[in-house]
Amino acid sequence: MTDLYWPGDHLAGDLMSDAAFLAAMVAVEQAWLGILVDAGIAPRDALADLTVSDGDAEAVARHADVDGNPVSALVAILRGRSEPSTARWLHRGLTSQDVLDTAVIICVRDVLIRIGVECAAQVRALADLAERHRSTPALARTLTQAALPSTLGAKIARWLDGVLDAAEPLAGLRTSLPVQVGGAVGTLAASTELAGSVDDAIALSDALAERVRLAPALPWHTTRSTITRIGDALVTCCDAWGHISTDVATGSRPEVGELSEGSGGGSSTMPHKNNPVRSVLIRRAAITAGPLGATLHAASAASVDERSDGAWHAEWATLRTLARHTVVAAAHTSELVSGLRIDDSRAAANLAAADGLLSEQRSMSELTGRTALPDYTGAADRFVDAVLSRARRFIEEAR
Amino acid sequence: MTDLYWPGDHLAGDLMSDAAFLAAMVAVEQAWLGILVDAGIAPRDALADLTVSDGDAEAVARHADVDGNPVSALVAILRGRSEPSTARWLHRGLTSQDVLDTAVIICVRDVLIRIGVECAAQVRALADLAERHRSTPALARTLTQAALPSTLGAKIARWLDGVLDAAEPLAGLRTSLPVQVGGAVGTLAASTELAGSVDDAIALSDALAERVRLAPALPWHTTRSTITRIGDALVTCCDAWGHISTDVATGSRPEVGELSEGSGGGSSTMPHKNNPVRSVLIRRAAITAGPLGATLHAASAASVDERSDGAWHAEWATLRTLARHTVVAAAHTSELVSGLRIDDSRAAANLAAADGLLSEQRSMSELTGRTALPDYTGAADRFVDAVLSRARRFIEEAR
Amino acid sequence: MTDLYWPGDHLAGDLMSDAAFLAAMVAVEQAWLGILVDAGIAPRDALADLTVSDGDAEAVARHADVDGNPVSALVAILRGRSEPSTARWLHRGLTSQDVLDTAVIICVRDVLIRIGVECAAQVRALADLAERHRSTPALARTLTQAALPSTLGAKIARWLDGVLDAAEPLAGLRTSLPVQVGGAVGTLAASTELAGSVDDAIALSDALAERVRLAPALPWHTTRSTITRIGDALVTCCDAWGHISTDVATGSRPEVGELSEGSGGGSSTMPHKNNPVRSVLIRRAAITAGPLGATLHAASAASVDERSDGAWHAEWATLRTLARHTVVAAAHTSELVSGLRIDDSRAAANLAAADGLLSEQRSMSELTGRTALPDYTGAADRFVDAVLSRARRFIEEAR
Amino acid sequence: MTDLYWPGDHLAGDLMSDAAFLAAMVAVEQAWLGILVDAGIAPRDALADLTVSDGDAEAVARHADVDGNPVSALVAILRGRSEPSTARWLHRGLTSQDVLDTAVIICVRDVLIRIGVECAAQVRALADLAERHRSTPALARTLTQAALPSTLGAKIARWLDGVLDAAEPLAGLRTSLPVQVGGAVGTLAASTELAGSVDDAIALSDALAERVRLAPALPWHTTRSTITRIGDALVTCCDAWGHISTDVATGSRPEVGELSEGSGGGSSTMPHKNNPVRSVLIRRAAITAGPLGATLHAASAASVDERSDGAWHAEWATLRTLARHTVVAAAHTSELVSGLRIDDSRAAANLAAADGLLSEQRSMSELTGRTALPDYTGAADRFVDAVLSRARRFIEEAR
Repeated sequence: MTDLYWPGDHLAGDLMSDAAFLAAMVAVEQAWLGILVDAGIAPRDALADLTVSDGDAEAVARHADVDGNPVSALVAILRGRSEPSTARWLHRGLTSQDVLDTAVIICVRDVLIRIGVECAAQVRALADLAERHRSTPALARTLTQAALPSTLGAKIARWLDGVLDAAEPLAGLRTSLPVQVGGAVGTLAASTELAGSVDDAIALSDALAERVRLAPALPWHTTRSTITRIGDALVTCCDAWGHISTDVATGSRPEVGELSEGSGGGSSTMPHKNNPVRSVLIRRAAITAGPLGATLHAASAASVDERSDGAWHAEWATLRTLARHTVVAAAHTSELVSGLRIDDSRAAANLAAADGLLSEQRSMSELTGRTALPDYTGAADRFVDAVLSRARRFIEEAR
Repeated sequence: MTDLYWPGDHLAGDLMSDAAFLAAMVAVEQAWLGILVDAGIAPRDALADLTVSDGDAEAVARHADVDGNPVSALVAILRGRSEPSTARWLHRGLTSQDVLDTAVIICVRDVLIRIGVECAAQVRALADLAERHRSTPALARTLTQAALPSTLGAKIARWLDGVLDAAEPLAGLRTSLPVQVGGAVGTLAASTELAGSVDDAIALSDALAERVRLAPALPWHTTRSTITRIGDALVTCCDAWGHISTDVATGSRPEVGELSEGSGGGSSTMPHKNNPVRSVLIRRAAITAGPLGATLHAASAASVDERSDGAWHAEWATLRTLARHTVVAAAHTSELVSGLRIDDSRAAANLAAADGLLSEQRSMSELTGRTALPDYTGAADRFVDAVLSRARRFIEEAR
Repeated sequence: MTDLYWPGDHLAGDLMSDAAFLAAMVAVEQAWLGILVDAGIAPRDALADLTVSDGDAEAVARHADVDGNPVSALVAILRGRSEPSTARWLHRGLTSQDVLDTAVIICVRDVLIRIGVECAAQVRALADLAERHRSTPALARTLTQAALPSTLGAKIARWLDGVLDAAEPLAGLRTSLPVQVGGAVGTLAASTELAGSVDDAIALSDALAERVRLAPALPWHTTRSTITRIGDALVTCCDAWGHISTDVATGSRPEVGELSEGSGGGSSTMPHKNNPVRSVLIRRAAITAGPLGATLHAASAASVDERSDGAWHAEWATLRTLARHTVVAAAHTSELVSGLRIDDSRAAANLAAADGLLSEQRSMSELTGRTALPDYTGAADRFVDAVLSRARRFIEEAR
Repeated sequence: MTDLYWPGDHLAGDLMSDAAFLAAMVAVEQAWLGILVDAGIAPRDALADLTVSDGDAEAVARHADVDGNPVSALVAILRGRSEPSTARWLHRGLTSQDVLDTAVIICVRDVLIRIGVECAAQVRALADLAERHRSTPALARTLTQAALPSTLGAKIARWLDGVLDAAEPLAGLRTSLPVQVGGAVGTLAASTELAGSVDDAIALSDALAERVRLAPALPWHTTRSTITRIGDALVTCCDAWGHISTDVATGSRPEVGELSEGSGGGSSTMPHKNNPVRSVLIRRAAITAGPLGATLHAASAASVDERSDGAWHAEWATLRTLARHTVVAAAHTSELVSGLRIDDSRAAANLAAADGLLSEQRSMSELTGRTALPDYTGAADRFVDAVLSRARRFIEEAR
């Protein structure tokens, strides 16, 4: 999958592609069919391998606006290809939203796995960088202006801290992703009718959770915090990377010169350029992420009845776009931090060129009446240690 | 082009597809090459038909994150396929942003043409409906509650007024869409060097505008109100349709029953349903449009230097998504209003069932001391006339 | 505090008002001064009660754009009123961002406490309602249309589930709110100079956390996930209430008539009206919340250097507005759910009026070959139980 | 009016304050009362001077959530203070939304006037700067990296072009701001009853437009493009200023040093700093504006019935906040551009330090076979001329 309007989109591979989405919907139907058979509700000859081919995604997509979602069209295609018994039992007990929501969540799981891998790589790379540069003198800047001496290690540790803030909740999110099984109005009425009892109907729902390896859950057709929690987590990742890339873009300005991308981009007309392309593209993702997350909240807030009249439909493409943008930004950030070049001498020169940096220290030592300490980087090194500890715990838990 | 996550996406056809975008970029390079030759800057043998094939969009997309945009990769492919003289002269004087921005604007023009056609169809259909139902009694509601008697014509005229508010500015926007020619830093330096004088360089820029039928313009690499104006116009269309579709979704609730879609959607499991699918999908677009427009503003506001470090890159996919969503919503709205069924008897029954509707009129006639007027729909009919006049002017100008 | 543009704003009382913000900033300075004295850094005579008067907030506000934040102006006022020793030691070791961020977090804590109280009230009221209406027959609707029979209890349990999704994380958020102490560039350089060692400087930071009852923390001047996590939590609350209020606004349409607000609002001109004003105002909050949350993410993503050049400044008013809107919506929702009137007979009538509701059940019983079950509400009652259990746990933990 | 969370808020003075809003609502009621009397509908003794006192805004605000908007409470207060005849006739024929919308628009007019004044000042200051620095050599940068030689005049002209893009539409917007008179459901039913005929009712509406100096208009209770057009215009202003302030913040980095604010801000702890505070605060406004504009679009798209159930209510505070933020940013930008200091020698030094800038020119002159032109700033000077012409036309028309 590629997107000419979003350079780097191919780095997200098939994650949340139309094909992946279709395959996940088929997997849900397949699992459910197996459950009906195993529960003795459907006869054994209903069991069959459901398959879709390359053109199916497009065929389903072209019919998806007839009923407002792709599931009806998919079920029609699958039934059309099936033996009568399979056709008869396929999808029984489910509603479109069960299939679609569960399929989206399956796709999201793959996205979170990938982002987790990228975050782990970033944490390792940033921990190495912070360790290596823990004592590299550098100018700290506030409101763009020279402020005080600090270290590059402290700056990198802050990036790392931000990545950990974003990455730590992902594991819990991933393992709590819920299945969606409610039937037409979230009551499992059809499943209860099919299974003969409420207990048996709930067992079907739990069985689907197990087969597709999601958490069992009450139906959440119109309580959408699952979706907004995913969205907020993705946006928070993009924020952390946006921070890093903005620092790198700033630090790679020729007049600053402290940072540069390992392999920057060129210009179609100016061969001398070494553009911080990774940073530019990560910043791009950070600009777009927040409003996509806000759309998911708007959709959640507009929930109504037992299935919403537009709010639910607004989620799918928004989440897909946000998820792919986040994965691409994750990959670009991994490249960025693993290839980052640091020019210690430029950092030292910028520090040396700044005037008045020690006036604060002088004020303080006048207050104490003691001789000023030999350096004025305070707890910078200690903070690096603290973040590195946190990073080690994260890496251990990620194993 | 289809999108399994956005039912109805195929209704936007090839508008702003990867293929259309690529073709537009090639058209810009082709036009510029012709201009260089016609101006006597490049030799006649540099002229060649630039062509791309089906796989090129993907090939370009896969290399687009090396330099951060797809133009370098496209130019490399085109040069690789060309005779030496063509390869030598292709793209000379342009920068990536010139090609990309102009191509995006060419694609936007096609989008605006299509939306204009849909709006004209909507205006005609809504004018017919308003005329036909100008005297149909109906309940007016405020804050969801029964308020006063009115007419369906007045409601439909308001929808029409909203569509006209959104549609009227589109023509002026379409004819003022600017070309982008600035060269590497917006100074036309390379073109001036090639042409030998500033006047001749500006003539090249104007010639490109003419060849691709856009307005001549000063370079706008980092002044992006063109993009936000397009975005705001698209969002405003979606707002107007969101209003209509929310009224239709509400009016088609079974307990209200005044409105229904000509051909609604079904359910994968409940055959008795006639869902207002068009309305649902239009509402979906209205939920997503505003935040996409906000992203374009955020990008514009983050402009910096002579080419921005991420803000520019955030525009492309955002504008593509917003544009395609808007086109699909346009098509759905045209279907909705042309097929809308109105149940006069349910409207009359809901009106009759409401209590206390004439208490306001009684208060007024107590104040005047005159007998109350025979009806209490005030200027409703007059407002219908006013909006119909506006609609007729729009249709005449749209011809 | 009131806001003529945001009816109900007074329900948020003084939470995050200018006065509360100023008081929190003074409390931070006061606590820090005490810590410096207790640590033996400042002399005992530096200790004094810092006080501000009514006009100070305005005076500080009028000078806040000189340096870009209100802390410098506040410190100048406080020093101007103090004895020399106090003036000499006040604020030493802190930077403006330490004081401002810690003060904002103190204000946020009060907001979260209030929202927690409101959520607990809502959970109790909704649990009562769900219990009472667990068997009340009602029509379930999807995409606005009649779908299947269900119960009002199931609908209310879903509202409750949504409130619990939003409310459960608030307690953990509240107890993890971090202090901000970093000094000028996040290194505790001045504190280290004052205290004489890194350990002692960190002890000062931890002491501030203890005195203002926040969690100790590494400096987070430019890693802003704390702020976005707060924002996301607030937006998620508004989402849950938006869902409830949209259902109530819909259910109180006269043609539906199943729900009504205990005490609705009137009209300036139509005395017969009983508007669902609480629902309307909650929906208002839900519309505005998401974009405010997105602004906090945009600010976080634009973090740069050791203090950001605009991103930090964008947070304060945005968070204040979001927080007050959320508190007002919380109060309105508590009123809404505790006063909600349910018309069982209208619910029954709407259910009876719907055609074809049992066609799905018939399909299912044809499949099973068994007689259809006596009702078709499936696991609705069981889901009510499950949510009620969750509610009881929440209430117990909230004690 | 001040806002401790939004430094500089006092620069917006009373624009859209609670007091200004209340006064505008009273002015609408006053004008309408006069119209009723002058039309012979109300008796002459109904005429009275309506007045509000300082505490009224708060009193009204505290009751505004009873009916969902402040107008009912205001009318009750005004009636309570009036002679019987005035009390009897006050507000007759109007609905709350008429009064509130017209009052908001009156306040917006004052906002647009103020922004117009600020824009004119900015245009003059920027035109002077562009003229003065039209030949100042400077480095042009793309994607943060050194690109080609250019001039500071070209950069300033681009800022000016952006301001003109934003400012030019404001005059037309200001003069087309519509009155709102529709009565309870937008039909002028009560006015028609009072006036005795539709023609006379419409004459009342037109008379109100004239008295409050707004454009006559059909009722627009649920067609809200007026509000979104205002919002988009304000956001577009913030975008243009965001661009300038980002360039200034970047250019005032000590390592770049080309630009600095005439009077920057200080630090509470570092006396050597000269922070670009104006730029920082303008950037803050640019970050918050877009999402506020998106909220107005969301509200417009959610319009329903004859008065919306929350969407309308979401507009007021959002528009107020956006408007005041924009005015403050306007004032800060005027200060910024009129006080901007430019360091020609640093600009020259940065240009001289950049490597390889003329490689593009060399490529071009190899292509032409001619000697390279003596400079490589192309049409930069010509573009400055074009923007200055545009600026002169704007200033003439603004007179």
